[in-house]
Amino acid sequence: MDRADAEQLDAADPLAGFRDEFVISDEHLVYFDGNSLGRLPKRTVQRLAAVVAEGWGDRLIRSWDDWVDLPERVGDRLGRAALGAAPGQVAIGDSTTINLYKLAAAALDARPGRATVVCDPADFPTDRYVLAGLAQTRGLTIRPVEGPGRAGAALDDDVALVMFSVVDYRSGEIADVASVTAAAHRAGALALWDLSHAAGAIPAHLDDWNVDLAAGCTYKYLNGGPGAPAWLYVRRDLQEQLVPPVWGWFGQRDQFAMGDRFDPAPGIRRWLSGTPAVLGIVAVESGVSLLEEAGIERVRAKGMALTSYAAALTGEWLEPLGFTIGSPLDASRRGSQLALVHPEAWRLSRALIAEAATIPDFRAPDVLRIGLSPLTTRFCDVWEGLDRLRQLARARAWERYDTTPGAVT
Amino acid sequence: MDRADAEQLDAADPLAGFRDEFVISDEHLVYFDGNSLGRLPKRTVQRLAAVVAEGWGDRLIRSWDDWVDLPERVGDRLGRAALGAAPGQVAIGDSTTINLYKLAAAALDARPGRATVVCDPADFPTDRYVLAGLAQTRGLTIRPVEGPGRAGAALDDDVALVMFSVVDYRSGEIADVASVTAAAHRAGALALWDLSHAAGAIPAHLDDWNVDLAAGCTYKYLNGGPGAPAWLYVRRDLQEQLVPPVWGWFGQRDQFAMGDRFDPAPGIRRWLSGTPAVLGIVAVESGVSLLEEAGIERVRAKGMALTSYAAALTGEWLEPLGFTIGSPLDASRRGSQLALVHPEAWRLSRALIAEAATIPDFRAPDVLRIGLSPLTTRFCDVWEGLDRLRQLARARAWERYDTTPGAVT
Repeated sequence: MDRADAEQLDAADPLAGFRDEFVISDEHLVYFDGNSLGRLPKRTVQRLAAVVAEGWGDRLIRSWDDWVDLPERVGDRLGRAALGAAPGQVAIGDSTTINLYKLAAAALDARPGRATVVCDPADFPTDRYVLAGLAQTRGLTIRPVEGPGRAGAALDDDVALVMFSVVDYRSGEIADVASVTAAAHRAGALALWDLSHAAGAIPAHLDDWNVDLAAGCTYKYLNGGPGAPAWLYVRRDLQEQLVPPVWGWFGQRDQFAMGDRFDPAPGIRRWLSGTPAVLGIVAVESGVSLLEEAGIERVRAKGMALTSYAAALTGEWLEPLGFTIGSPLDASRRGSQLALVHPEAWRLSRALIAEAATIPDFRAPDVLRIGLSPLTTRFCDVWEGLDRLRQLARARAWERYDTTPGAVT
Repeated sequence: MDRADAEQLDAADPLAGFRDEFVISDEHLVYFDGNSLGRLPKRTVQRLAAVVAEGWGDRLIRSWDDWVDLPERVGDRLGRAALGAAPGQVAIGDSTTINLYKLAAAALDARPGRATVVCDPADFPTDRYVLAGLAQTRGLTIRPVEGPGRAGAALDDDVALVMFSVVDYRSGEIADVASVTAAAHRAGALALWDLSHAAGAIPAHLDDWNVDLAAGCTYKYLNGGPGAPAWLYVRRDLQEQLVPPVWGWFGQRDQFAMGDRFDPAPGIRRWLSGTPAVLGIVAVESGVSLLEEAGIERVRAKGMALTSYAAALTGEWLEPLGFTIGSPLDASRRGSQLALVHPEAWRLSRALIAEAATIPDFRAPDVLRIGLSPLTTRFCDVWEGLDRLRQLARARAWERYDTTPGAVT
């Protein structure tokens, strides 16, 4: 358990070179928050500057000839690189929240007469809030299920929609998406999956899993930038069966004829709404290109190795100091993150940031979440960050901090 | 009507210096499309580069301390600079389409039992499509009214919502917002206004007009960039009376407690949904800062002078060639644009772009739309662009182009 082990692991890492593709101005900083805001790719700096200067500045409105199909073009690349989605089923745009709303509303419209929605009361807040809003407006009941693994018993012919996350945002546990989706289908319900903590961290197989609807963000493992546009997936055969709730001009068949009536475009395009956020999508494309080069299978292998290494160090160093691991112990059952549970998690996260140049994430009430982005995190970072954490924990550093929790995305 | 007049007008223009604040790489280009995609401010190049390099690249997740209230902070600046809105009523985010949907859906929820929506069948497509979608889902009837000026007779106690544009996207005609809103209120309806073609071109007075709800884009006269985030306005007393249809984590009161139930934040913040598009909002802020410096009253004065000059040249040069003006002839009744109606408008717009380094906009079926952004357009540009147009029209240049129309935003 000494630093030399970590150095050996880094030396043998086939993805080690990808760290050079990112802007890393402070080599002393241990960044365990790539699952909240992924690092900045160097190529994105170049690409954004070029699109701003040439696309916007020089070519002005003429650039729209090139930009008008960005949502689908980048969606196809993302679908292939990370989602297991054949072309024509993924579009980039809006936020995860808006996309979940659009997909859930359309699913509910497609199951009239059913009055129940199944979801996890511990799912990410925005997912739950979106469903709560839809349920209130429509007089539906939300049936809480503690994790997708327990969905089976909750399914009956009153369920219109099942919505879960593929990777749990706190524990990192990976759902059995194919089984849950099949069970939803047997009950006559549709299944909507949030891949925000999965996309770019684990290989997804949306087509093979027979998923109906999915959405996720791009600013975590996809390195799309702060508040980058999200994506949505609608399985091909559902694209024209379901009706998008928001009818917008970017979903119109012959958009610039500006016709009287909404005549939805064929395929995934009808799920678009307003004018796409060009700079945001361009940055997403740039992030996706790195994933294409690394390959999701290699990214996954390194992610498992990183979390396994972190789990081993936690067992050795941190469990004696009162930590427990709040993630599956089998690496194949967790994403690229590890939940370190400690009653003083909030104050320890403050101490790590303020005193030890280490940035974890805090998730209420007691989780220090360690995100290990395979393209940018070294085994040495894991060693270093957890070593700093054990020193702070040993010194009861939390006593120096305020107990009122807060945190950011 | 010779070029010297235009040069004199430019020499006397108090806003002439603002053109230097923008990236203009081709001085020969006459850009009449700042009302589709406004030009790139030099300061935006700097600001975006800094936010990317330092905010995202160096400070990473820690930057969210600063970014988390960007939507309201920039909303307040925009409200003061361009919208006549006191602080706490404007937020930046999502697209115009999504914002119109959110506001219209909330308004309809607030008027149960009323089954009619009033709008203009010639309004911008996305506005009409949003309403059509909501009407279909809810079984409402859309009552078409040809322009907001004729709304009065269409209002009765079955009308839930009235939605119009403050500046018509084709003709540039300015609505009498206060009167139409008052009439809507007398009928017990809510009024929603789209200011996409107004914001940054004419002084708006949302508070004084007693507008209920409004939205608009930022990539035209506000120079926010391609697909920049839009804004929405909810009058203070309605913010907590109406219920936003999309419940998202950025609308939650104690966002990072990630509580069980959606507990909407006070004020305009509850109208936010997902993670804000940081790069997009920063670019909007940069664009708004130019408007603050120029002052909307001076911008308006120059806008009227520009369209008046363009109208005079049109009368002299283009009417004899078969053009008519499709905008109000009184400058105070039109925005910062002029509609030149010609049966060959589409093919002439192609010829202007391909042969004469002049970029107008085409709006189906027969409008050559001349957008005159006061911060970047010189009187010389008006002279030059319309001179090029008359030469092409005189030579029947359209005969060289395909008749199939298309166009971009």
